[in-house]
Amino acid sequence: MSWPRRGGADGRGSGIGPADDRFTGRVTHVRDLSTLYRPESVAIIGASGTRGKIGNAVVRNIIESGYGGGIYPVNPKSDIIEGLKCYPSVSDIPGHVDQAVMCIPAPLVAEAMRECGRAGVKSVVTITAGFREVSPAGAKMEREIADIADEYGMNMMGPNCLGVMATHTPLNASFSDGFPLKGNIAFFSQSGALCIAIVDWGREQGLGFSKFISMGNKADLDEADFIADAAQDPETRVILLYLESIEDGQAFMKAAAEAAREKPVVVVKSGVSEAGARAASSHTGALAGADAGFEAAFKQSGVLRARAMEEQFVKAVAFAREGVLAGGRRVAIVTNSGGPGVMAVDAIEAGGLKVAAFSEETTATLKAGLAGIASVGNPVDVTGQASDLDYRVALESCCSDPGVDMLMTVLAPTAVLDSVAVAEHVLEVSRMYPETPVVASFTGGESVQEAIGILRAERIPCFQFPEAAVHCLYTMIEYQEVRRRLEKGKPLTFTGDAVRVQEVIDRVRSDGRSVMLGPEAMAVAEAYGISTVPSRLATSAAEAAEQAAEMGFPVVLKVASPEIIHKTDIGGVQLGLEDRSAVDRAYASIMEGAERGAKGARVYGVEVQKMFPSGQELIVGLSKNAEFGPLLMFGLGGIFVDLMKDVSFRLAEGLTDVDVSEMIRETKAYDLLGGYRGEAPKDMEAVEETVARVAQLARDFDEIEELDINPFFAYEQGVAALDVKITLSQKEDAGL
Amino acid sequence: MSWPRRGGADGRGSGIGPADDRFTGRVTHVRDLSTLYRPESVAIIGASGTRGKIGNAVVRNIIESGYGGGIYPVNPKSDIIEGLKCYPSVSDIPGHVDQAVMCIPAPLVAEAMRECGRAGVKSVVTITAGFREVSPAGAKMEREIADIADEYGMNMMGPNCLGVMATHTPLNASFSDGFPLKGNIAFFSQSGALCIAIVDWGREQGLGFSKFISMGNKADLDEADFIADAAQDPETRVILLYLESIEDGQAFMKAAAEAAREKPVVVVKSGVSEAGARAASSHTGALAGADAGFEAAFKQSGVLRARAMEEQFVKAVAFAREGVLAGGRRVAIVTNSGGPGVMAVDAIEAGGLKVAAFSEETTATLKAGLAGIASVGNPVDVTGQASDLDYRVALESCCSDPGVDMLMTVLAPTAVLDSVAVAEHVLEVSRMYPETPVVASFTGGESVQEAIGILRAERIPCFQFPEAAVHCLYTMIEYQEVRRRLEKGKPLTFTGDAVRVQEVIDRVRSDGRSVMLGPEAMAVAEAYGISTVPSRLATSAAEAAEQAAEMGFPVVLKVASPEIIHKTDIGGVQLGLEDRSAVDRAYASIMEGAERGAKGARVYGVEVQKMFPSGQELIVGLSKNAEFGPLLMFGLGGIFVDLMKDVSFRLAEGLTDVDVSEMIRETKAYDLLGGYRGEAPKDMEAVEETVARVAQLARDFDEIEELDINPFFAYEQGVAALDVKITLSQKEDAGL
Repeated sequence: MSWPRRGGADGRGSGIGPADDRFTGRVTHVRDLSTLYRPESVAIIGASGTRGKIGNAVVRNIIESGYGGGIYPVNPKSDIIEGLKCYPSVSDIPGHVDQAVMCIPAPLVAEAMRECGRAGVKSVVTITAGFREVSPAGAKMEREIADIADEYGMNMMGPNCLGVMATHTPLNASFSDGFPLKGNIAFFSQSGALCIAIVDWGREQGLGFSKFISMGNKADLDEADFIADAAQDPETRVILLYLESIEDGQAFMKAAAEAAREKPVVVVKSGVSEAGARAASSHTGALAGADAGFEAAFKQSGVLRARAMEEQFVKAVAFAREGVLAGGRRVAIVTNSGGPGVMAVDAIEAGGLKVAAFSEETTATLKAGLAGIASVGNPVDVTGQASDLDYRVALESCCSDPGVDMLMTVLAPTAVLDSVAVAEHVLEVSRMYPETPVVASFTGGESVQEAIGILRAERIPCFQFPEAAVHCLYTMIEYQEVRRRLEKGKPLTFTGDAVRVQEVIDRVRSDGRSVMLGPEAMAVAEAYGISTVPSRLATSAAEAAEQAAEMGFPVVLKVASPEIIHKTDIGGVQLGLEDRSAVDRAYASIMEGAERGAKGARVYGVEVQKMFPSGQELIVGLSKNAEFGPLLMFGLGGIFVDLMKDVSFRLAEGLTDVDVSEMIRETKAYDLLGGYRGEAPKDMEAVEETVARVAQLARDFDEIEELDINPFFAYEQGVAALDVKITLSQKEDAGL
Repeated sequence: MSWPRRGGADGRGSGIGPADDRFTGRVTHVRDLSTLYRPESVAIIGASGTRGKIGNAVVRNIIESGYGGGIYPVNPKSDIIEGLKCYPSVSDIPGHVDQAVMCIPAPLVAEAMRECGRAGVKSVVTITAGFREVSPAGAKMEREIADIADEYGMNMMGPNCLGVMATHTPLNASFSDGFPLKGNIAFFSQSGALCIAIVDWGREQGLGFSKFISMGNKADLDEADFIADAAQDPETRVILLYLESIEDGQAFMKAAAEAAREKPVVVVKSGVSEAGARAASSHTGALAGADAGFEAAFKQSGVLRARAMEEQFVKAVAFAREGVLAGGRRVAIVTNSGGPGVMAVDAIEAGGLKVAAFSEETTATLKAGLAGIASVGNPVDVTGQASDLDYRVALESCCSDPGVDMLMTVLAPTAVLDSVAVAEHVLEVSRMYPETPVVASFTGGESVQEAIGILRAERIPCFQFPEAAVHCLYTMIEYQEVRRRLEKGKPLTFTGDAVRVQEVIDRVRSDGRSVMLGPEAMAVAEAYGISTVPSRLATSAAEAAEQAAEMGFPVVLKVASPEIIHKTDIGGVQLGLEDRSAVDRAYASIMEGAERGAKGARVYGVEVQKMFPSGQELIVGLSKNAEFGPLLMFGLGGIFVDLMKDVSFRLAEGLTDVDVSEMIRETKAYDLLGGYRGEAPKDMEAVEETVARVAQLARDFDEIEELDINPFFAYEQGVAALDVKITLSQKEDAGL
């Protein structure tokens, strides 16, 4: 059930590159979750006959869901539970047990799991709470049960979860109050409460699910495992996740990028507001908020991000219907009322879609087929006097126009209109034109409920107000672009002089520092092929003058101190020095400024740098992200870095040419580099290569905590790093 | 039913300034709409006994709504309609008729209205369509009936409308299928279809309305009239409008600003995407999209803007409950589940609200009152094991904390929790702490419907997901700020040398131009007290050198031509000319450049300007807005104007000190002016005054179509306009 590609002869996999091996996550194979979703038999450890207890709810839910396999309640104190024979322990069960559901107190779980392992159980669903989420002792127990799962080669879901719901099996091995409708949305949630809420709400909204999973504490199975399985699952057409954290950033990205080639992956990541508390010494570190890593990871792995639960389900609904994706952005709108039509147009243009321009033929057909009062532009306004047949004419005409990629039907109830008949026309027309995605906005409550139900039953997205329907169309295009990006992107790798870099790092460390001096950082950049300005360390005025003469005037002098971050603020940068005596004076002035403005700072001398002409001022940087490793930043340099914050981020791991190109395009720097207002275009290729080389450096040297190339000048030909700052991780940390 | 002010002794009007006389709209008195909403009797012109006809639906709706006044069907062909005596014409009705509802064909309306006028009818509701919306002939008929209404001193609503619904009267003189629930939201819509949809949807959502009006073509009564009446209406607590156009910009702003002092006014303005097609010759004109005028008008008149219908009703719900507004932004959250709690925190921080920090006392109370497993930080997580009594403890503790301004209750259904009981606790606690706004998010569908119903019945905002509930809290703060702005703002007026400006304008016009030469525009700016750089027109190299010597070197030369807009692009600007010979050479070079780069352009010579030191580069501009008159722009100057588009807009009419100050704060230029990274702060007062003086110039001279001061330099002391461009409206237009 992968998404067929428009124009491809074969619906499955055509045009897709090899599986995504850009990421280095621990998931090297997809875990086999068949015994989690489709077990031949289930044992409920801690089953109970007492209503209201979790061990009772699970047994009853399994029975009520219509599960066809063996159901074995386990409880040494009971003989029969809910009409089923009850066993004292798993090992007493006569048949083979595929899956065990744990509903016993936390301290008893480890022993029960060992027993399951010995009995050949393949999947354990640990509903039991009281682990990592409550105390360090709980965390220890949690590690223990994860190790047991590993030891016996079992999958373990949880602990502290709601259980597993698989509608196609069917199996409801959870203590949820309800069971979702059968459908093709897989939902994996880090919050059990949200699951309960959405089971309930989803039934109301007519949303159908394939898998419905509360992942709990993710001690063993985590989001990467669930995504990897769902990617291959023929019952699942779209994968939704609610995440508060990510266990293994690389594994997540690998699984998501592979899945997103096959079907949309939509994530709500909450907890975005928790600002990273770590003090950053670089621009990049300061500008990369807590969310920048997640945002970059989602972009690079092709994940569609939703900002709220409702938006996530709007996106899901866009993909729930079988069929091709939109071939383009041109939308035709058919409406019987002006207001909602105007709102649809607003939403279309705000979302980067286009109001289609009809062909002359279409306009003629509409004119011939509709009453004189109708407006045959786009939106087609069939007016409040329209019958369902007017809608039919308009819908068919629009779809037959080759300039129309997508169709939106807007309906406001009137006395003369049969909304159910309109819904049926929409269905028929959408079957006639299977390549044209169709959405609907039937405004009004009760009076259009039946019509909305008809559309939703066939998975045509239908909402009260136009905005959500337009968002469905938008997200189809968004997913098209994700796939294009994943298919097109090629990893960028370079070979640097790693030996030289390691030497510099060792020297800095042996000096007891974590901040590199300017010339050291320059040497590191050079070793990785990053174009830098000639730059040396001088420890006296005479030495500075000598070096300046060697590299040629004019030169720049900068204070060399790992402890002085904003050098200009204390007069630590002297520009345009034309001869030896100017260098002499500048040296003295810098030393005096450092003495006055940065008392106590270790000053190693000055950095003598050949003065380069001014180019387009940029910044390239990186800072270490807790979840996903080194995070690159690109943007406009100078004082505008902090003021405009017009910067973009990508992760170094798995970085492709498409990522780098898009990263630059996201900023206003892109317009300037292209040659703004008559200026000559700058060397975009060299800029891109520099970003990619910084990424390579970051991938090769885990010790680099932060890096700023600022300013970084782009010229018509070539680029130059004028100042490089590198901070290493604390040696203690590195040893951990 | 105005909003009481926190801390004010008297709930009504305390602390409010005089009525808003900043705006010059035609509404000088509030129209009396009592006979529209509460007529003593209603005649239905074109009443019908045939089901399905509008003339029948209106009669039945009036009867079914429980209307207590006289109901007089009028139709010469019937004796009895729906059990009521029918009259051949209005003049045959024995009693007095307050209101007439027109359901007759368009060509008959004019005569019927005259008859109504003669019979002393006070309000006419013209449901009939077929006027301006269909043809020029219809537009003519529409003007005629508006004139008749005017002649007889009648109110006329419509034509082409749904009718009037007033729930408190009660009166449903419309052909709507349903009648909204009684409540305190007034809704005025430019789309009848949307009204029908929202009547229906509103019942489902439990939204209560006071007035529910489809304004139709607004030939007589328009949004300004409805707003002005609703502002004084004791049945109305919040005013909602759906607008596609605004009839009279000034009248709207005046009415809205007066209303917003008393109660929130929330607008959805659709059709925002229709880009203004007019070609603009100034930066300001180019940057002011079609929506900038509306956006500025809403800000300056205190209107809260919603981007979609659902958002509008979320905002409405925030104000529907009696009670004080929030005293601050600090929110306490009580939840029984982590996920929705985290989502609430995200929404709170994203919306500029704050997660409250509890006092030690509160923390102690929570610890003592809740089970050990509960988390007593904020959010207070009573956990999935909580009972309704745990909620009670937590809710009371939070509200009693002086550090808590607002309360949010989050609930996910569990087997052990009685959600109805929680709803009742929420109500009780909110009665105990009437100063603390309370919102709720009860996630889940059916299982929490009863609880949600209980909260909504008492007008406690309650939604499925946390985001909408947080938006309610946010909008309360938003409205507090609107009121503060309206109360604090003082109009800024100046007296300029209007005679001198008029002379320049006349001279330019008599020269057959609409674009002023640099020195002309400079003179206009000077006449209005705008600080400019000395600047003269020279028509020969010798004259230029002479003037330069007089004003003192160095100088700048700029080509003087109304047809050359981007002077630098053709080498038309020469900087830093230090002596007479440099001026000489520059003159020649400019003439040559103009000849080459702008062939055929009229060149009047050069502008000689004293060279000023570089300051913080800004832009101040104005362009004429179709709805609201002159629109001011402020932002960062230089090449960043177009690139960053970091500009803000306000309307010249009614401009206050608060508007100007906020306008500057909206841009990044504000940070730079404040003294960015160690630079000295610039003369903010002089910047503000310049903006206000440009506004005065625009108010005094309708002829000015566009104006750019670019660059405009701000110094530590004072400011200077280095280049002023002024374009006049075409003389033909001005004469219209």
